[in-house]
Amino acid sequence: MNAKAVPVSTAALPASRKIHETGVLHPDIKVPMRAITLHPSAREPDVVVYDSSGPYTDPRVKIHIEQGLPRIREKWIHERNDVERRVEALSADFPIRHAPLRAKAGAAVTQLAYARAGIITPEMEFVAIRENVGRARTGQAGARDGNSWGANVPEYVTPEFVRAEIAAGRAIIPANINHPESEPMIIGRNFLVKINANIGNSAVTSSMAEEVDKMVWAIRWGADTVMDLSTGRNIHNIREWILRNAPVPIGTVPIYQALEKVDGVAEALTWEIFRDTLIEQAEQGVDYFTIHAGVRLQYIPLTANRVTGIVSRGGSIMAKWCLAHHKESFLYEHFEEICEICRAYDVSFSLGDGLRPGSIADANDAAQFAELRTLGELTKIAWSRDCQVMIEGPGHVPMHKIKENMDEQLKHCSEAPFYTLGPLTTDIAPGYDHITSAIGAAMIGWFGTAMLCYVTPKEHLGLPNRDDVKTGVITYKIAAHAADLAKGHPGARDRDDAISRARFDFRWEDQFNLSLDPDTACAFHDETMPREAHKLAHFCSMCGPKFCSMRISHEVQAAARESGMTEMAQKFREQGEIYINPSAS
Amino acid sequence: MNAKAVPVSTAALPASRKIHETGVLHPDIKVPMRAITLHPSAREPDVVVYDSSGPYTDPRVKIHIEQGLPRIREKWIHERNDVERRVEALSADFPIRHAPLRAKAGAAVTQLAYARAGIITPEMEFVAIRENVGRARTGQAGARDGNSWGANVPEYVTPEFVRAEIAAGRAIIPANINHPESEPMIIGRNFLVKINANIGNSAVTSSMAEEVDKMVWAIRWGADTVMDLSTGRNIHNIREWILRNAPVPIGTVPIYQALEKVDGVAEALTWEIFRDTLIEQAEQGVDYFTIHAGVRLQYIPLTANRVTGIVSRGGSIMAKWCLAHHKESFLYEHFEEICEICRAYDVSFSLGDGLRPGSIADANDAAQFAELRTLGELTKIAWSRDCQVMIEGPGHVPMHKIKENMDEQLKHCSEAPFYTLGPLTTDIAPGYDHITSAIGAAMIGWFGTAMLCYVTPKEHLGLPNRDDVKTGVITYKIAAHAADLAKGHPGARDRDDAISRARFDFRWEDQFNLSLDPDTACAFHDETMPREAHKLAHFCSMCGPKFCSMRISHEVQAAARESGMTEMAQKFREQGEIYINPSAS
Repeated sequence: MNAKAVPVSTAALPASRKIHETGVLHPDIKVPMRAITLHPSAREPDVVVYDSSGPYTDPRVKIHIEQGLPRIREKWIHERNDVERRVEALSADFPIRHAPLRAKAGAAVTQLAYARAGIITPEMEFVAIRENVGRARTGQAGARDGNSWGANVPEYVTPEFVRAEIAAGRAIIPANINHPESEPMIIGRNFLVKINANIGNSAVTSSMAEEVDKMVWAIRWGADTVMDLSTGRNIHNIREWILRNAPVPIGTVPIYQALEKVDGVAEALTWEIFRDTLIEQAEQGVDYFTIHAGVRLQYIPLTANRVTGIVSRGGSIMAKWCLAHHKESFLYEHFEEICEICRAYDVSFSLGDGLRPGSIADANDAAQFAELRTLGELTKIAWSRDCQVMIEGPGHVPMHKIKENMDEQLKHCSEAPFYTLGPLTTDIAPGYDHITSAIGAAMIGWFGTAMLCYVTPKEHLGLPNRDDVKTGVITYKIAAHAADLAKGHPGARDRDDAISRARFDFRWEDQFNLSLDPDTACAFHDETMPREAHKLAHFCSMCGPKFCSMRISHEVQAAARESGMTEMAQKFREQGEIYINPSAS
Repeated sequence: MNAKAVPVSTAALPASRKIHETGVLHPDIKVPMRAITLHPSAREPDVVVYDSSGPYTDPRVKIHIEQGLPRIREKWIHERNDVERRVEALSADFPIRHAPLRAKAGAAVTQLAYARAGIITPEMEFVAIRENVGRARTGQAGARDGNSWGANVPEYVTPEFVRAEIAAGRAIIPANINHPESEPMIIGRNFLVKINANIGNSAVTSSMAEEVDKMVWAIRWGADTVMDLSTGRNIHNIREWILRNAPVPIGTVPIYQALEKVDGVAEALTWEIFRDTLIEQAEQGVDYFTIHAGVRLQYIPLTANRVTGIVSRGGSIMAKWCLAHHKESFLYEHFEEICEICRAYDVSFSLGDGLRPGSIADANDAAQFAELRTLGELTKIAWSRDCQVMIEGPGHVPMHKIKENMDEQLKHCSEAPFYTLGPLTTDIAPGYDHITSAIGAAMIGWFGTAMLCYVTPKEHLGLPNRDDVKTGVITYKIAAHAADLAKGHPGARDRDDAISRARFDFRWEDQFNLSLDPDTACAFHDETMPREAHKLAHFCSMCGPKFCSMRISHEVQAAARESGMTEMAQKFREQGEIYINPSAS
């Protein structure tokens, strides 16, 4: 594969520029954000938004996919003086080779270990700055009126708050010491809700270049982490290209690669093959591993009468292994050894929900909740080894059963961050499962899920292409943002208010530029009113000029000024009598 | 416009045929449903689903747009012996003229009047049969586990239940005596959640043929009612074409046409012009009117400091009129006269929320809730005149403020059905507002909203085209169905379970045919696995053959049968000990 042949999307988003905020404790950290410039007539400052897209959207940076990204965390990692180079790499095809690092003997190099030791790492200060998205410590108040369901989202995130949340296990920073290209981000209930995009080829379709492009495309639109779920040939090499060019944490499901090594025969898997795969991936820099260690032999019978059995790929592989050998899962049996590996590279656990429901009929059943309790048990073991943990959740769940998932997870997993796939709120809309699941994702995000794994329109039907990836990401940015609003995140409403002011003022370009997908918003507008002059028109084709409520509202407000309406409103408010009380009339 | 040049979409949906169930009280009624035939290997009966698409999807029916649909309710209406023909029509361009009917002097010809008199009309028996969607009275039980939030959804809908709900004002059957082509449907909290699709041209774009086609297209995908929101020229004629060819109730916002009659100058509106417009539309057969009678002079100042002012077109028009004249709204002042018109034709009220919030910032504010109380007051007046009523709701509302909308509506509007637009749960995604709003729609549908007004991807940007109409309808079918599932509607899960079984059995064609949009599901599948043989493949391109969890699950279940897994599961269940209790270990 010729590296020069890897085209990815670069260029800034419309009216946007990359800005950076520097650290105080760590003056060399530069935290990226995106500033959207409004029309001069708005007389408003730039709107600053969270930016997961890395250097790709910075026109000042020259992208060389074959060289990989700058390794911004390399210095931070080495200055901790607790890692050493491992010289003999297992394999490598990426043109530039970095000798993998691992912890010095016995050292725990995890953010959790540092947090417990009272150390505020550059990673922690970085995410603290990032979470505040450019707001000053003394930002606006009053616009915050959500229901956080017990989450404790601070007005302003300090580095110490980040450290304390990580130390408590309530948040993680997935940051493998061998992925220094990554811009740190945090996953936890008391922070902004994050989203993950799955990419990866399958045996049937897709190539390295396509997957690198999908990764860059996914983060352009806002994916906070990317999971490489490749299952075909060349898993190792594709992952190397992705990691060396990924400014976001990369997650994997290592059992997929282990299974490839035994030619797809689940029964042939062994702990040794799996262990070697973990080390191989940890040395490459994978930031979090999905480990289906909760699929225990004794739970498998609980799935026998399900409508859709076991729908997790990893879960079904392990179930097959357990049954074939009539033995307990080697992932469960060797869990402490897995922890030792994760501890030596700071790979975070994403404890997989191998028994998640794959249909409305199977939601919240005995198999699912039995596994969840085991994940809670494993969380404590991982924490005892200084490993960072998040917990995966379903799946297919009707709306009235969503809250129970969050409540059970909080109860049994000691507030470790929850990371859910959807959930899909009905089974009947293949082709639209980004939408069936966005409903569930927004709700469970509101209830406390820290990261939402996207679902694309192709779910249940095929491998997502580039367009599907974008649709999935935008849909999940909507769900995550709706959750932030409902939780009462102190900064979440700023962007809504800015776009609504732009809408009311007919600043069309600002409305596009502030939206999650400026290209689509502009294209839709231009379909019926394409001329440049229409970008200033005080109406759109939806209602036409005579019926534009916003235009009429401006006239109403003008009339109000003449007739003293503001004073009238004030008088109403002072009297506390704004309703005609029907029961009194 | 040449009628022959009006192409609409006909033909049955895949693997589907139109079936009819006949009445018992009224043996001549034929209630349409859609039966989806499964693959013989499924050994399952046809899945019967609700069908709003009218004769267009029945290949046995020859469609003549220029002749209009058969007038199936004509006989029912005349047999009640309470209407008379009004000979001098105001205007007509549709090739076939039907002399409009109106109530005999003093008679109330509304379904509410009949219900109160203890009469079960053919319309009532029709909707009772329709709501049961082919389920036998002694259908399956046990699959019902929702939270209905106080709704009383019966196991089986009887004609008497329908009558009682209508008599109580908790449900309406929008059924103008001059729209006998319509197949009756019911809107109420204790029935299936319905959806409405808005169509209609604007001054900027669109024609009659396009709008008729959009109407047929919308109902093909499941719209239960259609609102014609045309605001440009030829409103009357476009509406006639739509009504004569619509098997679903048609709603309008009469103030739009009234405003056209005064050349768009809101101040020039008069009660007389508005009244004549109501009669003109009632004679044509419009089934429900949005009337913004709750926008009172005294509430307008409450919108002065809003971020987006008044975003309802009708609301802004009335606000402008009130301020210009410094007078109370003529809709409010003449409300009882409006009731007299609605009573003489059985036009249902959709009491408009002219002060709904147009941004997250304005949600649940004083203006909105002041108007809602007035709508409650007007509901009682309409009921006292035997008029059917539903209440319109917002708009833009963050998730944590949605339930309050439902609670306030139930409280102040005496359980009259709620009919909401979305709500949109964030402002930041123009181009994707079908999704921002589907989240809110599913939730408020669950909480008790009876009908959800769709939002298309073009919202805020332009007039929806045919594709947008379909996307909006499918998205809202998802929201409505997710709500039915969560409410615990006794029949809702049947379709989910059938599609999930098909998925688990790799019956791809069944999976497509049972989905809300078979064309898209099949096309997405075929993108990566186009060959016919793949329709039988026991995997898809998402995971490829080795990683297909469903295939592995089948192997697990086969292994389980050999190893007595079912007995094991049974033993676990009998012991009531399905978890390893971590606290005990």
